[in-house]
Amino acid sequence: MNKQRASKVLANLRELGLGQAIVTDPLSIWYLTGYYTEPYERFLALYLTEEGGVPRSTLFCNRLFPDATGAADEVVTFDDTDDPVPLVLAATDHAEPLGVDKDLAARWLLPLMEAGAGASVRLASVAVDRARSIKDDAEQELMREASRINDRAMAWLADQVRVGVTERSIAEGLLGEYRSLGAEDHSFSPIVSFGANAADPHHEPDGTRLEKGDMVLFDVGCKYRAYCSDMTRTFFTAAPTAHQVEVYDTVRRANEAAEALIAPGVEFADLDLAARRVIEDAGYGRYFTHRLGHQIGLSDHEPGDVSSTHHEPVLPGMCFSIEPGIYIPGDIGVRIEDLAIVREDGHEILNAYTHEPTTLDA
Amino acid sequence: MNKQRASKVLANLRELGLGQAIVTDPLSIWYLTGYYTEPYERFLALYLTEEGGVPRSTLFCNRLFPDATGAADEVVTFDDTDDPVPLVLAATDHAEPLGVDKDLAARWLLPLMEAGAGASVRLASVAVDRARSIKDDAEQELMREASRINDRAMAWLADQVRVGVTERSIAEGLLGEYRSLGAEDHSFSPIVSFGANAADPHHEPDGTRLEKGDMVLFDVGCKYRAYCSDMTRTFFTAAPTAHQVEVYDTVRRANEAAEALIAPGVEFADLDLAARRVIEDAGYGRYFTHRLGHQIGLSDHEPGDVSSTHHEPVLPGMCFSIEPGIYIPGDIGVRIEDLAIVREDGHEILNAYTHEPTTLDA
Repeated sequence: MNKQRASKVLANLRELGLGQAIVTDPLSIWYLTGYYTEPYERFLALYLTEEGGVPRSTLFCNRLFPDATGAADEVVTFDDTDDPVPLVLAATDHAEPLGVDKDLAARWLLPLMEAGAGASVRLASVAVDRARSIKDDAEQELMREASRINDRAMAWLADQVRVGVTERSIAEGLLGEYRSLGAEDHSFSPIVSFGANAADPHHEPDGTRLEKGDMVLFDVGCKYRAYCSDMTRTFFTAAPTAHQVEVYDTVRRANEAAEALIAPGVEFADLDLAARRVIEDAGYGRYFTHRLGHQIGLSDHEPGDVSSTHHEPVLPGMCFSIEPGIYIPGDIGVRIEDLAIVREDGHEILNAYTHEPTTLDA
Repeated sequence: MNKQRASKVLANLRELGLGQAIVTDPLSIWYLTGYYTEPYERFLALYLTEEGGVPRSTLFCNRLFPDATGAADEVVTFDDTDDPVPLVLAATDHAEPLGVDKDLAARWLLPLMEAGAGASVRLASVAVDRARSIKDDAEQELMREASRINDRAMAWLADQVRVGVTERSIAEGLLGEYRSLGAEDHSFSPIVSFGANAADPHHEPDGTRLEKGDMVLFDVGCKYRAYCSDMTRTFFTAAPTAHQVEVYDTVRRANEAAEALIAPGVEFADLDLAARRVIEDAGYGRYFTHRLGHQIGLSDHEPGDVSSTHHEPVLPGMCFSIEPGIYIPGDIGVRIEDLAIVREDGHEILNAYTHEPTTLDA
């Protein structure tokens, strides 16, 4: 177990009035223990508490998972035919409130509540989320490298754009490129959208073939030593129309207005507002249909979004996306996204790939 | 909404003493409505109840999801900045117990419970699971075709086995082969294991290169029009040793002993026992470390496993895997897996690919 991170989480729990919690997000378990496995429908949990001022952890693992010996102070294993609920009950303090992960599934949560695993049960993942949200120096360096690789991958993507190519064939080639650049995987399923397909912000790459003049949107990210990147660029494939130029320029100005503001103490909602105002002032407000961004780290979407309802201040070490977009159904979709890290003296943008309007030779 | 399936689920709910439930498994929502989207951390739920003996459904969708108009009697949409909990509260009967999905995450379940969405909250996904477990004729035909494609993919996999090839390169080529055979995707991440790697039942394909004489294990499946296949074969790449022959033959006899028993009324546990006894009698009992199999359909692992603790009878229309294995760490791993459908008159094995010991020309 990483005692420093566990102590941070326990301090956050104390602020919530909690002295014990069950962590079930596999990435949070990795963050705290260095042990990672994807449990699917099986039970995997880390019980965290304090004994005499010292963190104490118990990891509950199905024996089908990779061996977890040494990952926690105690490792409790069980088989597919065992019910893990009584094992957890034997570890928790039934007289005290118990914190649980926001992802804990009803199949485990309801039996634990019925059996009285804690005096009450409360959502407590914010204690881990807050710790994960502030990246230490080593984590920041991994975030930087993941985004450096993503910049290079974007150049490779731009090179693949040819009349007649399909969205799917470009998307399916990207993993090989990431691997050759040193990344281990996608951080999310890549978005490759031609023409009006880009007006659906979550369009999945399909057999659509590029026609001359289609705009092309790439929203892609990789994992580098477990840390995620995420960026979007939108390209032209012929001299743009005045309408295309106006939409692109509006999104770019929205992106840069928000990025310029990032500094300790600014609220997440202020960033959203700065971008949204640029788009509203240009008359496209109703076509910007999502929050401005999301935090990112071990997972591509981490809690604490960059949205109009999030009034907490950004803090040094936080990393998040700035990704305004304009989506006019049947017509056009443009998004420009970078990752930023908050620094004591302002911020650092992790993506160097240009925002300049770029026409590819398709 | 599919009224016939919804009526089946409501009848199952009544048996549990429930008149209302929230379904959140995206595949169960697809099963009931024909609407599919992967919500990730966002809220997606189908509220199901009865009004005057007629099913009534309300679908809760984030406006970022694909348009769901017409998928349910009522579709309630909301934005990222809205809290969906009050929307659900407005639909449920607070004076009656409320069924919830086993997958419902604590982040939604705890607020719904605190706000009193139902007089009590109980796990109820078994009502949907039981309906999904009995495949109708159209579903059975899709399961058959998914396994026919998987048989052909296994022949392609066997063709890729050459000294020096890596596990990962074979695994990464499989998706293209599935697509050319008419499938849309993997049903799970393919397992390709060389030599002693196969002794880890969940080994992930890596850069291991095939050496002459290594045994090769493929555990793969595809999705065909949303339905899953799943099969395992283990091959030799040189004349097998007596030890290899004995392990292979034991697993094969275990597989066939269980498959021969499948008929309406036999308990799942009887099937597990039949295979386990063969392996135990051969002295390898402690190396068969998992349940015999799992149900399958829209998801590759569906509830109601083929294990020693599951004492319900198998019923016509059920589909599940039979996959005994022997895993001796550092030495050898063999598994042979088919899918079976229970029929009134016995059973049907969906995989035609041979069980005969096969030595590939590597």
